[in-house]
Parts: sequence; C-alpha cells; structure tokens
Amino acid sequence: MGKVRFRGVLVPVITPFAADFSIDIDLLYRLCVDLLDQGAAGLAIFGTTSEANSISSRERMEAIDGLIARGLPAQRLLPGVGACAANEVAQLVRHASAAGCGGVLMLPPFYYKGVSDEGLFRFIANVIERVPNLPNIYLYHIPPVAQVGFSLDLIARLLEAFPGIVVGIKDSSGDQNNTRAMIQRFPGFDVFAGSEVFLLDTLQAGGVGCITATGSVNVPGIRKVLDNWSGPSAQALQDRATLIRKTIQNFTMIPAVKAIVARATGLPDWKRVSPPLIQLDAETENRLFGALAAIDFIPDQLALARAKEAT
Amino acid sequence: MGKVRFRGVLVPVITPFAADFSIDIDLLYRLCVDLLDQGAAGLAIFGTTSEANSISSRERMEAIDGLIARGLPAQRLLPGVGACAANEVAQLVRHASAAGCGGVLMLPPFYYKGVSDEGLFRFIANVIERVPNLPNIYLYHIPPVAQVGFSLDLIARLLEAFPGIVVGIKDSSGDQNNTRAMIQRFPGFDVFAGSEVFLLDTLQAGGVGCITATGSVNVPGIRKVLDNWSGPSAQALQDRATLIRKTIQNFTMIPAVKAIVARATGLPDWKRVSPPLIQLDAETENRLFGALAAIDFIPDQLALARAKEAT
Repeated sequence: MGKVRFRGVLVPVITPFAADFSIDIDLLYRLCVDLLDQGAAGLAIFGTTSEANSISSRERMEAIDGLIARGLPAQRLLPGVGACAANEVAQLVRHASAAGCGGVLMLPPFYYKGVSDEGLFRFIANVIERVPNLPNIYLYHIPPVAQVGFSLDLIARLLEAFPGIVVGIKDSSGDQNNTRAMIQRFPGFDVFAGSEVFLLDTLQAGGVGCITATGSVNVPGIRKVLDNWSGPSAQALQDRATLIRKTIQNFTMIPAVKAIVARATGLPDWKRVSPPLIQLDAETENRLFGALAAIDFIPDQLALARAKEAT
Repeated sequence: MGKVRFRGVLVPVITPFAADFSIDIDLLYRLCVDLLDQGAAGLAIFGTTSEANSISSRERMEAIDGLIARGLPAQRLLPGVGACAANEVAQLVRHASAAGCGGVLMLPPFYYKGVSDEGLFRFIANVIERVPNLPNIYLYHIPPVAQVGFSLDLIARLLEAFPGIVVGIKDSSGDQNNTRAMIQRFPGFDVFAGSEVFLLDTLQAGGVGCITATGSVNVPGIRKVLDNWSGPSAQALQDRATLIRKTIQNFTMIPAVKAIVARATGLPDWKRVSPPLIQLDAETENRLFGALAAIDFIPDQLALARAKEAT
C-alpha cells in the first residue's frame, strides 16, 4: 500500500476537555467528522492548538484509538508526536503507525535551548531507529513556541539520511522567506504554511497547503483559497481568510478558537482549556464576537453540524 | 513524622546512560552514594543537569525505585518532576511521595510561552489537587532554559494557597537580585541559589544553600563555602568555588561535567549524553582538562571512590 501524502487544508483540531481535563473523545470525534465534511484534507490532532503538550502520551494514544474506533479514517490523521524524550516520541510514532495514521507531525525536543543541529539530528535519528514500521514523518517547525527548530541545513541532512521517511514540514516560523526557502531548496519535500495567512503565497511558491490553528473554525473559507489559488479570485479569497485569521489572532489564539466553537455548537464545555492556558473572560469573549460580527463572521452560522447535533 | 526540609548543598546528579540511552542505575547509585559521602545534603536527581526531560516519566520513576532498592536513603532525594502535562507531573509527585522522597523539585509547564501567572497557578493547583499525600514541593525557577518561570507574585499566591506544601525554590535565574528579593519577601520560604557562584551571597541574605550543576564534581569545594560562610575565609573559599564553576561553565555544562566524572572514575561511559545534547569532542575535552589543570582542579584526584571502585 502506497503511503498517503497530505496536501490541502489540515486542522490541528482543538481538544475538548471534561471538568477533570480528561479528553472528551465523543466531542472530539464529532468535531473531526465535521471538519472532514467541511473539506479538511487531514486532521493534525495533538498539535500546539490541540494543547497536546498539556496531555500525557498515554491519553493522546487512547484518544487516537478512540477516534478510530468511532469510525474516523486513520489515514486522515496526522497526529502530533511532540515530547522531549526520544523514546517517548518513538512510542507515539509506533502507536500512530500501528493505528494506521497517515503520518505524524514531529516537534524537535524543546526543553534544552540553543542545541546544535548535530544534536537534533541525533535525536530524530534515534527516534527513527526505534520504530520498525515508520509512517511518513512531517517535521514541525514552530520556533515562536518551541524555541528550538529545524534549520535548512538540518532538514537537508534529514532528507539525505532518511529519504522517503521525512517527507514534509509545517512551517510555523511566521517567516514566509523561510517557507519559500524550504520549498526552493527541497524539491519533492511537502511544505505546509503554518497559517492560512501565507497559504496563497505558499501555493504559488510550490508548497502543498497549510496546517492552521483557525482551521477548527474556518475550513470552508480556507478551502476556497486552496480551490481557487490559480484563478482570478485568489487574492480576494486570501484577503478574506487573512482578515478572519487576524481578527481571531488579536485574541489569545487557543481560547479564542475554543470560544468560537463553543458558540457555534452551543456547547460551553468547548471553552475549557487546560492550564497553563486560561479561557477568555466574558468581557473578552464579547469583544471577540463583536470583532468577528464586524467582519461578518458569525460563529452561530458556522457549519458545525455533527458537533452540535448529537447532544 | 515531620517532613525533612533540605538545606546545604544539593546536587542535580548527572545521569549515566547505556548505549541505548537507558539509565545505568548501578552507576547512578554509586555516584549518588559518593556525593552524599562527600557532603551533599540531598540529591536533586532528574533536574536539568540530569537530562531529566530527555528521559520518559516511566524510566525516571523506575530509576528512583532502583536507587532506593539499592539502599539510597529516600529522604535524601529531591527528584525533579518536570513535565508539561499536569497529570504527568502529578504522577511523578505521587510516585516520589509513595517512595518516601524528601521532596520534589517542580518545573512550571514549559511548552507554551508567555502564559499568565493565573494559568501557572491553576496548573500547580491542578497538580496538587491530584495528589493525596503531598511531599514538600520546591519550585524550580530556570527561565534561561524553561523560558517560563515563577514570578514573585505567583510565588506569593502559591504560598498563600498551599502553606506548608510549597516550601522552597531553586532560583536558576542567574539574577541574584531576584534571589534576594525572594528571600526578603517570603520569610520561612527556603531559597536555594541555582549556582554555587551565588552561594555566599545567598546564605548572607538568608537563603539555605544551593542546588548546582557542578555539584556532581565539586561538592567538597562548595561545602567549604557553606561550612565557613560566616567566618573569615568565606570569601576566599567562595572565590575558589566560583573559579572552578566558571572554568567549567566556559564549556557546555552538562557534557563538561560528564567528561570530568568520566575522567575521575576512569569510566568513559559517563561521557554519553542523550540527544539533543552531544558530548565534547576530544579536542574540546582536552581544552577543558587543560583549563582545569591551570587552576589546579584535577579530575583524576576527585574523591569519587565508590563510583570508581565497583567496576
């Protein structure tokens, strides 16, 4: 069986928490189905927006199993496998592979700062050596959060050492010159923008899509950019998607996205975030909805059908 | 039974790795015994210098059990319980408590950056709520590495909410004004310098000791500062300890400390570090030993008796 290569709009799905901060897998499943129905090419569950690093490895693996058991197609899943210990990352990769996931999204180890490319190479190599049946590995470059990242030279070395295994990257550097440099230097390497703000530019440069926090609330708008990127309406569609993104981004991203989904589904539990994050207070939430209404983006009208229905 | 309160010189013991990066518990045990014999008041195993965040929680817990099974007094252990997920931290705390450890050293969650004091408070509170029999909790403030830290206001709030539970801190900010401010503002709160460079100043200000990376190689020299801090030789002893520290610190700290212990014990396996760290190359190692010889600090003469003997 040939391995899937993701392209298009992928969503690092927000994670619903019960009062004890365990994952509400039923609710997560319903949002995942919704997002696929809306046109998401894949679900990068357990990324930064999913608060994955606030969730233990065991719970992340159980949730993946739970989603697949409920009927979610494993091949559409690109779970994050972020952890600081190589054998913990390897355990997450092995699990994702055995579950049939379409790939994994791999952070660098993020505790020690200022580490060398050589050290990061050895870390990734160590993970790879520990996993017999490797899924496609996508690197996750997000220096604003992880501080540690993948330099171009490190990527070159990984591609040379592990051809057909390390196949792509999510670039959340926020630096579009870096994204373009990756695309240019590594033909055949699948580069995703880390925000839809850069989607059109990334596609024009030869990238394959975006994996974006606001996917949980705006897959349809982002899909329009993707579907029309070479046509005359591309820039207008991009401008609209960018406007929505930037409006949300003026607030704290993760609680803001969760507040929108809570409003769209009528399920206030969606607002719960895991510490150290905190949810928006009522006044900030009102400002968020006011700002979104001002640009005609109305959470109550979002197509989150199943996420709503089964309650 | 009253709970131990640590004071004096504590060592975040370096961790010996086998070729597959599993922990060599026998070798770790021997170094731990040595360090206690040399005058360490406690062993802050699984701290930053121990490469704890490159080791899975399960392995850290197994190693604690293994050390105690070999005869190490649990009350002398202050294991680090750093992790980004509250229930994983709670699991480490529960384990340390059940094992009888003298306390735990707690990092803040370190993935998300720029988080609020409110969010960090809720994280710590969430950990505390999950553990029925709490050991003494020492906070671990190391913003140069973790980026996230404990502000004075957050500490005040934790002390008010959890009196007798949050009892102290290791301040590795490198900012002695911060250390002094903690001591001054929180009487009865046990403040440890994060480096012996600040030991004398910390003791003079009312702090209780230091927890320091170079403890693995210079407990005797640091103990001298502690034992004579109010006497006439204090500054000279501090200057000597500082000189040794700064000489080592000119190199990458963790591999440098490991190289010194490898030399002192004649066991080159001690040099192994877990990726993303890398060991010193031969030339750098020679420069390190040259620099140490120039200040009359000779690894071969270090009192690491048991660590050497049993091989």
